[in-house]
Amino acid sequence: MAQKPSIPKGTRDFSPVEVSKRNYIVSIMRNHFENFGYQPIETPSFENSETLMGKYGEEGDRLIFKILNSGDFLEKVSEEELVEKKLKKLTSKISEKALRYDLTVPFARYVVQHQNEIEFPFKRYQIQPVWRADRPQKGRFREFYQCDADVVGSTSLWQEVELVQLYDSVFSDLGLNGVTIKINNRKILTGIAEVIGASDKLIDFTVALDKLDKIGEEGVKKEMVEKGILETAIEKVQPLFNFTGSINEKLEKLSELLSSSEEGKKGIEELRFICDNVIKLGLKKAILDLDVTLARGLNYYTGAIFEVAAPAGVSMGSIGGGGRYDDLTGIFGLKNMSGVGISFGLDRIYLVLEELDLFPETVTSSTKVLFLNFGESQAFEAMKAITTLRNNNIKAEMYPDAAKDEKQFKHAQRRNIPFIVKGINNNLFTLRNIISGEQVEVTLDDLIKKIQ
Amino acid sequence: MAQKPSIPKGTRDFSPVEVSKRNYIVSIMRNHFENFGYQPIETPSFENSETLMGKYGEEGDRLIFKILNSGDFLEKVSEEELVEKKLKKLTSKISEKALRYDLTVPFARYVVQHQNEIEFPFKRYQIQPVWRADRPQKGRFREFYQCDADVVGSTSLWQEVELVQLYDSVFSDLGLNGVTIKINNRKILTGIAEVIGASDKLIDFTVALDKLDKIGEEGVKKEMVEKGILETAIEKVQPLFNFTGSINEKLEKLSELLSSSEEGKKGIEELRFICDNVIKLGLKKAILDLDVTLARGLNYYTGAIFEVAAPAGVSMGSIGGGGRYDDLTGIFGLKNMSGVGISFGLDRIYLVLEELDLFPETVTSSTKVLFLNFGESQAFEAMKAITTLRNNNIKAEMYPDAAKDEKQFKHAQRRNIPFIVKGINNNLFTLRNIISGEQVEVTLDDLIKKIQ
Repeated sequence: MAQKPSIPKGTRDFSPVEVSKRNYIVSIMRNHFENFGYQPIETPSFENSETLMGKYGEEGDRLIFKILNSGDFLEKVSEEELVEKKLKKLTSKISEKALRYDLTVPFARYVVQHQNEIEFPFKRYQIQPVWRADRPQKGRFREFYQCDADVVGSTSLWQEVELVQLYDSVFSDLGLNGVTIKINNRKILTGIAEVIGASDKLIDFTVALDKLDKIGEEGVKKEMVEKGILETAIEKVQPLFNFTGSINEKLEKLSELLSSSEEGKKGIEELRFICDNVIKLGLKKAILDLDVTLARGLNYYTGAIFEVAAPAGVSMGSIGGGGRYDDLTGIFGLKNMSGVGISFGLDRIYLVLEELDLFPETVTSSTKVLFLNFGESQAFEAMKAITTLRNNNIKAEMYPDAAKDEKQFKHAQRRNIPFIVKGINNNLFTLRNIISGEQVEVTLDDLIKKIQ
Repeated sequence: MAQKPSIPKGTRDFSPVEVSKRNYIVSIMRNHFENFGYQPIETPSFENSETLMGKYGEEGDRLIFKILNSGDFLEKVSEEELVEKKLKKLTSKISEKALRYDLTVPFARYVVQHQNEIEFPFKRYQIQPVWRADRPQKGRFREFYQCDADVVGSTSLWQEVELVQLYDSVFSDLGLNGVTIKINNRKILTGIAEVIGASDKLIDFTVALDKLDKIGEEGVKKEMVEKGILETAIEKVQPLFNFTGSINEKLEKLSELLSSSEEGKKGIEELRFICDNVIKLGLKKAILDLDVTLARGLNYYTGAIFEVAAPAGVSMGSIGGGGRYDDLTGIFGLKNMSGVGISFGLDRIYLVLEELDLFPETVTSSTKVLFLNFGESQAFEAMKAITTLRNNNIKAEMYPDAAKDEKQFKHAQRRNIPFIVKGINNNLFTLRNIISGEQVEVTLDDLIKKIQ
């Protein structure tokens, strides 16, 4: 192989610095997930195809990576079928496994499969990669991690309260100020659809309304009319075009607007419970806001809908999202299992922290001290000291070869190692701080203290 | 879908307890890897097929999971080729990506691809799943984790010294007493082959010799003769049939035996350096032993060969292995890059710790206290306290619904939650220890102290 090797498009290698930064984010999530009582599970990277196919719509089916059967994968295919070239049919014959597309369907499958071992309500978190055959582009990958926390088996709205707190705890701990946790409720959207008399136009309606800031009231109304929404219907929800104020004020406006919709009123009640309690319990650094245009995964969610926006000034899509789905496990035959959950967008959070320079320096500091190597006898003395340092949980290394001083020194610099030991004499160590240039002779005990 | 869902054979779901125990092992490895200066990298789950194919022999090629091209995977296949049913040719046309089979080849690919960004010698560790289409059986899975530490770009034998120390540090920290780190050297095996005058019979020779304990000297010799090794050759290496004593004694015996082999003498010298220094620096709980029958990955390793055996009494194959390979990256066109590394067998280590009951209890303790739920107003008081507890890094939860006392109590028991709060009155909390039955009324401050 002559040319330089490469990796498939849409995938990434992660360097030591990148892995350390990602692990820093994940460890903070993990800590808060567990503080909130969520327990970790892991599921296989590939599932039986019938577990995944048909769960994400037709487009989703196409984007699922299929694994070729091992051995004679044509065994079950007749010559006729081969020549027919019917891709879908052929795929099901030569491939019976597929890579995980998200963590929600495998979680539903897990719950149904292990229902007799699980103690409900079951709060689980899961941090694993997923794969999608999307066209790769900036910020969109074919392999990426999802970080999900869900609870299944309880309809209590305290779960929603807690999930808002969980978002706040994680993002605050990451040092992010002014993250906005947007909340909505599917039932309010249903109420609006009832009021405008066109539930099939609901998406068009919310998509247009969301552009209020950009194209103004007239622009939005024009777009709505173009999409076939009647002007009389638009008039009925006029208050939504000036939908500002506190959450309570917004809820008041909605109460008037949706007074004729039972479903809408139920949605307002739910939102009031969640927001009231979140506000009374207090948030650390995040802002809670009610956003009636929030409609992600409309066909999926049945109650609360969440989305998290990065702090103002950072141009980045949502860094998290989630909601309640009343029938999580129905697709696998287990009825009446309500679930609610949130997801953290690891890649985007990484980019936001990078942009705001919020990674602590300690995250990427690895080896603390490099012992230079001046040949065999001193090397042994160095390794003796290093063994002691490591037993004291100090990251220490020896340059493996007795190379030129300068080469060894440069190695320390390039690796961002802050200290080097330049020599050992009578159990005294010549310790040099690479950044300040300060150089001292110390005993091993003092060396440990100085580096710790 | 009526029948209960399942997962592909050879794959596993991991429950919260299992994930916690696995994470415990991994976190100890990670800590020592970093103490020794190894840095984490991660590579994509799938590689371009040409990166993997042909690197693991014919059998390996068959066991690699191939990913079906997305979209029209038959695009490049002519009707003739289809009907021909030549599997290998067809595979290369309908699949251009494949799941990682181990971590070594992706590491070699990484080093070559990023050679200009890497500071050598490069010490990296990598803990990621790999996939093999092996026939699943007890303890052998189609998806499993590998945990590798390798250094590339240095021929210094201090690396080997350090890798033995690394094994010792990890296994000692896991509480394993009496793990045996077996060491050998490819050059010694070459020397033996020279002496018996049959390098093509080397594997037969070592496999037979390894059975000495079980079938005795006569049995071993019989097997060797049956495999076509000459009796005169066997006589020349008679000392290997009584190969006991300290490492130094073994090295003495080898010196005599291999005095005619330059390569063999080189191997002895290398082993002496490694063993001498390991012994002088001292091991914590592991035992180092020289095992001339150790020949794993014979075509691969060029210097030291390592294998770790579980403590005597635990029936388990090797729980780790590794060695030096002089030309790690040659397959990708980068010559003269010597590498040496070791691998930890996570699944087997897990089973050994389970068998010896060595997982600390704290590993699986999750939520510390469950607040029972007696309806809305008290629920709010509970959530207020829980928010404070979580801010103090104490894992706390409220039962989400105002269910019957008994149901909530049983939930705590089934979840192994040690404390419950049964009631809140005037800022006093009725705290009950589920195990001892002890019940006290405490302030929030005292509750924190009691649980911490």
